[in-house]
Amino acid sequence: MAKQYLLTPGPTPVPERAALKMAEPIIHHRTPEFEAIVAKVREQLRWLFQTKEEVIIFASSGTGAMEASVSNLLSSGDKALVIKGGKFGERWAEILKAYKIETIEIPVEWGKALDVKKVEEALAAHPEIRAVYVQASETSTGIKYPIRELAALIGPRENTLLVVDAITALGVFPLPMDEWKIDVLVTGSQKALMLPPGLSFAALSQKAWKFAEKSNLPRYYFNFKKELKNLQKNQNAFTPAVTLIIGLHEVLSMMQEEGLEKIFERNARMARATRESMLTLGLSLFAPDSPSDAVTAVLVPSGMDAGKIIKHVWEKQGIKIADGQDQAKGKIFRIAHMGYIHEPDLLIGIAAIEMALKDLGHPVELGKGVGKALEVMKK
Amino acid sequence: MAKQYLLTPGPTPVPERAALKMAEPIIHHRTPEFEAIVAKVREQLRWLFQTKEEVIIFASSGTGAMEASVSNLLSSGDKALVIKGGKFGERWAEILKAYKIETIEIPVEWGKALDVKKVEEALAAHPEIRAVYVQASETSTGIKYPIRELAALIGPRENTLLVVDAITALGVFPLPMDEWKIDVLVTGSQKALMLPPGLSFAALSQKAWKFAEKSNLPRYYFNFKKELKNLQKNQNAFTPAVTLIIGLHEVLSMMQEEGLEKIFERNARMARATRESMLTLGLSLFAPDSPSDAVTAVLVPSGMDAGKIIKHVWEKQGIKIADGQDQAKGKIFRIAHMGYIHEPDLLIGIAAIEMALKDLGHPVELGKGVGKALEVMKK
Repeated sequence: MAKQYLLTPGPTPVPERAALKMAEPIIHHRTPEFEAIVAKVREQLRWLFQTKEEVIIFASSGTGAMEASVSNLLSSGDKALVIKGGKFGERWAEILKAYKIETIEIPVEWGKALDVKKVEEALAAHPEIRAVYVQASETSTGIKYPIRELAALIGPRENTLLVVDAITALGVFPLPMDEWKIDVLVTGSQKALMLPPGLSFAALSQKAWKFAEKSNLPRYYFNFKKELKNLQKNQNAFTPAVTLIIGLHEVLSMMQEEGLEKIFERNARMARATRESMLTLGLSLFAPDSPSDAVTAVLVPSGMDAGKIIKHVWEKQGIKIADGQDQAKGKIFRIAHMGYIHEPDLLIGIAAIEMALKDLGHPVELGKGVGKALEVMKK
Repeated sequence: MAKQYLLTPGPTPVPERAALKMAEPIIHHRTPEFEAIVAKVREQLRWLFQTKEEVIIFASSGTGAMEASVSNLLSSGDKALVIKGGKFGERWAEILKAYKIETIEIPVEWGKALDVKKVEEALAAHPEIRAVYVQASETSTGIKYPIRELAALIGPRENTLLVVDAITALGVFPLPMDEWKIDVLVTGSQKALMLPPGLSFAALSQKAWKFAEKSNLPRYYFNFKKELKNLQKNQNAFTPAVTLIIGLHEVLSMMQEEGLEKIFERNARMARATRESMLTLGLSLFAPDSPSDAVTAVLVPSGMDAGKIIKHVWEKQGIKIADGQDQAKGKIFRIAHMGYIHEPDLLIGIAAIEMALKDLGHPVELGKGVGKALEVMKK
């Protein structure tokens, strides 16, 4: 097996420090030792989410916390609004449909920015909308949606929640939950949090907890109120993913050592370096108007298949970048720059893409993309 | 931190071999490499479940697969039957209630055996019952329920399913799914499977898949049909718990190296050794009539608090055994003998209990319990 390099938007590489911690002999979850770890993790998660509220932890992939943010907050007969501009916007719509919630959709062309006015108009036309579901960073297209503006619009409304899937956003760029008045903020373990997949998270504003009091949809495993009650005793409602929570304490400690501001700056710099290097190589961006700092989606030249570039960098260099999904398949490739992906790792990816482009007949001056990235990183 | 020994019914100790495998650099789930692991794991799980059917894998604790076995199989208006003789029987009832399924309960005194006749009578009185929910091994009391007899009763019924929570049973004692005609068999990662918590599993008979076709309850993350479709392509519907699945391949390989029959024999021998040593020490069993080979629940002498024994073996020896739950709290302690708990580990536990009993004023001839266990193990 050749050496491998992960530049995918989840899972991202796991720091050796966390991997080895998780490989230590497992401990029981009903012990003062584990409870002390949970106590620390609760505090660390509040720091990460920039909130005073408790952050709920589920043993599941990110979709679990997304589902919980429907099944625990809405009631039958409620109406919801979904921003649908990619695969994960579609996921919100699918979950709402599964619970028979009447859903108004704001379609956004894949890779295009969201016009907040459309949300404002929809809320004016349907003041009964109980929740607006959106992504902070739409992983499938590399777009960033204007959460601050949406929160300014929805935060003051007593009867409407803003529910933000920040699975590929939290810990990458600023999303201060309390300051911006985001009602529900959801994330997962395998992105900026640098852990293997298997944990999902959600924090709720006081307004959202009021919705949870009234919600009447069926639920059992994903139960915010039950988890809150247990978490306050440093426990979980069901057997927690013990090793992942031990790893979580480790990665959150690493993040606290670096500091949120520095992480955000580093990610922004890496994202800019990626974008500018790709432009220098004559490629274009799939989401140029509002690119996410978590992942860059790159449009390949017309006539070229993105799959071939992805295959080339994988087979020749052992570097894993991601394909486009669904309608974007073959048209784009996606490079992640978050979590434990640091600047040198990114240079490896850019260099491999240069080589792939050259081999596939695209005119490239080798080293030019890497040079551009270095220039940005130097600043 | 002193050395610790886990003799709890989940999590059980994780073999070093699996822990180190899971600590290797993480790989992406959309790679031929991971798909090859999933392909092997599918085959291995069929071997473990003794079935030709596909075994569905969720990233969740065991309760997730339990919930899925309600939300994917029943429809609104359906009636269900629950065997309720412990904390996990209560969990079935709670899940059914969450989905508003009308439920007939067969209460069984905690620690007492189930009379299959009562199930037969209930089915005769309510032929419309769509599913019978039961535990193979009720972890909270150490009782084993007669799954073979229940399957013989329910297997031939076209319109009723037998749904078995085997979270603390599968891989401990025989539950040949196809041979006995069990319709749904559920398990979790942190018991006989020797992994950290975070994976749950369910296999469905062809009859059960027909129920899944008709079921109309709301569900999203826990979706049997969606997972089946993905699994057939060696994929998962949502980002899988990559490292745990890599660990799963490792532990299932270990189990295959030993062989199911040998594992069952070893567990049965350890269970017998535990029971006989406890009786020798003058204690009694909480579930004497039909004890499970996974976990032994031991009644402490009247006037003694089980919590004190548990505290003693933990604080003096670093050995973690489990307390009774809910109504059994303080009355019993529970020792697990499954998974990566082997005979020498068990001797440590028995010795520590002897010391605790002596210190707490119970008349004990030190070494007598261990001696009895050795006698049983020698056979």
